[in-house]
Amino acid sequence: MRIEIINTGSELLLGSTINTHGAWLGQELLGLGLRVQRLVTVPDGDPIRDALKESIAVSDAVIVTGGLGPTSDDVTREATAEALGVELIEDEHAVRSLEAFFAKLGRPMTPSNLKQAQHPVGADVLPNPNGTAPGVYVPPRLGDSACAIFLLPGPPHEMHAMYHAEVAPRLKALTEMPADHGVTNIKFSGVGESSFQDMLDAKLHEAGGLEVGYCARPGELDLRLIGSESDRKTAANLAIKTYPQCYVNDDGRSLEATVVHALTEKNLKLALAESCTGGRISSRITDVSGSSAVFTHGYVTYANEAKVAMLGVNEASLEKEGAVSEKVAQEMAEGALRNSGADIALSVTGIAGPTGGTDEKPVGTVWIGISVRKGDQILTSAEMKFYPNGREVFKRLVSQAVLMNILRSTKEV
Amino acid sequence: MRIEIINTGSELLLGSTINTHGAWLGQELLGLGLRVQRLVTVPDGDPIRDALKESIAVSDAVIVTGGLGPTSDDVTREATAEALGVELIEDEHAVRSLEAFFAKLGRPMTPSNLKQAQHPVGADVLPNPNGTAPGVYVPPRLGDSACAIFLLPGPPHEMHAMYHAEVAPRLKALTEMPADHGVTNIKFSGVGESSFQDMLDAKLHEAGGLEVGYCARPGELDLRLIGSESDRKTAANLAIKTYPQCYVNDDGRSLEATVVHALTEKNLKLALAESCTGGRISSRITDVSGSSAVFTHGYVTYANEAKVAMLGVNEASLEKEGAVSEKVAQEMAEGALRNSGADIALSVTGIAGPTGGTDEKPVGTVWIGISVRKGDQILTSAEMKFYPNGREVFKRLVSQAVLMNILRSTKEV
Repeated sequence: MRIEIINTGSELLLGSTINTHGAWLGQELLGLGLRVQRLVTVPDGDPIRDALKESIAVSDAVIVTGGLGPTSDDVTREATAEALGVELIEDEHAVRSLEAFFAKLGRPMTPSNLKQAQHPVGADVLPNPNGTAPGVYVPPRLGDSACAIFLLPGPPHEMHAMYHAEVAPRLKALTEMPADHGVTNIKFSGVGESSFQDMLDAKLHEAGGLEVGYCARPGELDLRLIGSESDRKTAANLAIKTYPQCYVNDDGRSLEATVVHALTEKNLKLALAESCTGGRISSRITDVSGSSAVFTHGYVTYANEAKVAMLGVNEASLEKEGAVSEKVAQEMAEGALRNSGADIALSVTGIAGPTGGTDEKPVGTVWIGISVRKGDQILTSAEMKFYPNGREVFKRLVSQAVLMNILRSTKEV
Repeated sequence: MRIEIINTGSELLLGSTINTHGAWLGQELLGLGLRVQRLVTVPDGDPIRDALKESIAVSDAVIVTGGLGPTSDDVTREATAEALGVELIEDEHAVRSLEAFFAKLGRPMTPSNLKQAQHPVGADVLPNPNGTAPGVYVPPRLGDSACAIFLLPGPPHEMHAMYHAEVAPRLKALTEMPADHGVTNIKFSGVGESSFQDMLDAKLHEAGGLEVGYCARPGELDLRLIGSESDRKTAANLAIKTYPQCYVNDDGRSLEATVVHALTEKNLKLALAESCTGGRISSRITDVSGSSAVFTHGYVTYANEAKVAMLGVNEASLEKEGAVSEKVAQEMAEGALRNSGADIALSVTGIAGPTGGTDEKPVGTVWIGISVRKGDQILTSAEMKFYPNGREVFKRLVSQAVLMNILRSTKEV
C-alpha cells in the first residue's frame, strides 16, 4: 500500500513550529505494517490543492493534517472535492455536533464555522470530540480517484484521538489486517541498543512473523514489536525476562510516572539529595500529578556548605574523600533519609562538566547513594557511574539511573 | 524567489526522528526574507531522484539535506547529476580534505568514502569542517536546470555550519540583498503577543522597510526583526524601551543563562525554595555551566513539614494562612536566605493541579516570594500570580516568572 502524508500550515514552513505530525503518524502507521512513501509540507491556501492532486494520483492512501478550520485559508475540504470532481454538501449531524460543542463552551457559533460541517458528497464525516473541526474520510473509488483520503484536524491531541478512533481501523480493513495485529512498545532503561540486539534480536525474530524495532534515546530504549497478539506477548515476556532489572513499562507512561505509581502502591515516602543534577530528578518526579503523596523533601546541595548544613555531611569526609566520593554520596543519602523521615532516599554527587574534572575524577564521574529503612535498620550503599556525554545528557542519564534505582527499590521493600 | 526543501532519510518517515531541519531552515531563510514554498520528505534511495527532478523543475532554489554519506542508499549526488544531465567527477581538493579528516580521527579511509568527494561537473564543492560529507552547490543555469541547488549533510551541526558559511551568502547574492540585511531576535518574558502588537506593531513598522515577526512560547516572546542593520537597531531600542522589565536578551541565549551571567557579574549568591515547581527552577539554573559559582542551596519543600524543617516556616502561618499564601511565601524566601547565607532568595508556593484547588485558591494560584540583603537589612516581599494552564505549562510559567524576578533584582542590587 503506497501511502503519503500532507501536512498543511504556513507555521511549519516559517520555522515557528516543528512538524511532529510526520514522526507521530510514521510511527503509528509502522504499527500497522505500513510505511510512509512521501511526506509533503505546504503552506495554507492554494498549495494544498496542488499537493493533494499530486499525491492522490500516485497513492493508495493519503492522510492530510490541518486546513480544516473556519477561516478563508483553510481550503482542505474544498481542495479535496475539487480533486475528486464532486460537490461539497453540509452534513446535518455535523452541524448539530458543532452547535453542541459551542453551547458547551458558552460561545456563539459564527457562520464561518458552518463551513466545517461540509464534506465531499459520498465521503464520511469523522467526529471530533476534542475540537470544532470534524474530519473527513473519502473511501477508495469515489469520484475520479482510486485513493483513500483522510482529512484530519491540525491540533495534535485532536489529530491523535481521531487517528486512533477513525483512521487506524479503516486502514486495517483496507489492508485486510487481522484484528489482533498491533504494536507493543516496551520501555527499558540501563541497557544499550547494541547489547540488546546481540542478546535478543535473533530470538525475538524466531517468535514468528514479528517485526522488531528499536528506538533509543539517552538512557532509554523502546522495543517495538509488531505482529499478532500472541507473538507480541511471547516476545515481550522473553525481553523482560532477559533484562528484568532494566524493564520500565509497556503502557507508554514516562519512567517518572511509573516510579511515582510504584511508590504510591507501596505507600513509601521518597527524599532526594541532589548535587550535580541540581533539582532535575525532583522536578521530574513532581511533573507527575499525585507525586505530593510520596515525595516530600528535596535537597539541592550544589555547594559543599549546603551538603554539611542541609544533610549533615561530615566536613572531614568532604576534605578527605572529596565531594564526589562514595562516602559523601552515602552520607548525603543517609542525611536525607534521617532529616526527612522518608522510607527511601537517593543522592547524587558528580561532575557534570565541562569544567571541574581531574585525572582521578574526570568529567562525567558520578556517585549515586541510596539509603532505605529495613525495620529498625537503615541500609546505605553507593555506586559509581561514568557518563562523559556533556552537561545536558549527563543530567538526563544520571536522573534515569536514579529513577531506575528507586523503581528497583520499591520491588525489594 | 521560489524555494523548496527536500529532507531525505528513512528515519524521518518511520517516526524514529522528528524532522527539525525544516523548521530550522524555514526560520533562517525567513531571516533573508525568503519563504519556503514546499517541503518534501522522502526516504533514502530512488525517491530522492524523483523529488529532486520535480522540485528543480518548478523552483528557483532547492535545498536538499542528507543522502551524502558513503553507503549505497546515499544517492543525492548521483540523483542531482542525473537530473541536470551532467557527469559526476571526483574533486582532488575534496579527496585531500577527506584524507586529512580521517587522519585526524586516526581511522582508515575506506574506498566508499571516495564517493563523497564526487560532484556534478560545473558544481562547487562546499567544505565540511565538521564531518566527512562535503556539500555541493549547483549554480543556476547548469546543464538542463535554471535552478540553484544546495546539497547539505544531514547531521544538524554539520548542516547548520555549512548553511551559515556557504548557503546564506550565496542566497543573499542571488537575491541581490544588501550586505547589512539580516535578522535580530529579541527575547522578552512576561508580556503577551497581543499586548505587544497593540502597543508596538504599528510603531515598529514605521521604522522603514522592516519585516516584523513574533514567536510566542509559554512565558516567552521572541520579537524577530528583518531588515537593514540601522532599521533593526532603531526598532530594537523602541521595543526594549517600551518593555524594559520584560527584556531578556538579544543574543539567543536562554533566560537561565542570562540570569546566571547577571548573578556572576554582580558576584551575587542565589538560593531557591521551591514547592509547586518541585526543583524545576534549580534544575534550569544548574543547566548553565558555571552556575555552581552563584547557586549554592536549593530547598525543594513539597510537604508542609519540609517547609517547617528546612526553611523555618512557622507552623502557625501554615495553619492560619495555608501553604499557598503571601505569608508562607515570604517566610520561605527569608528562611532560604538566612539558612544559605545567599544575597537573593526566591520562593514559590502554589497549586499546580489538576487536583488540590479550592474556590478561594483555585488551581493555578501561586505566590512568589523574594528576599534580598540591602546592607544589614533583609527586605522581603511576595506577589501572587495565576496560571491555570495545566501542570506542565504552570511549572514552566512559574519558573519563567521567578527567573525574571531574579534578573530584575540583579539590576537593582
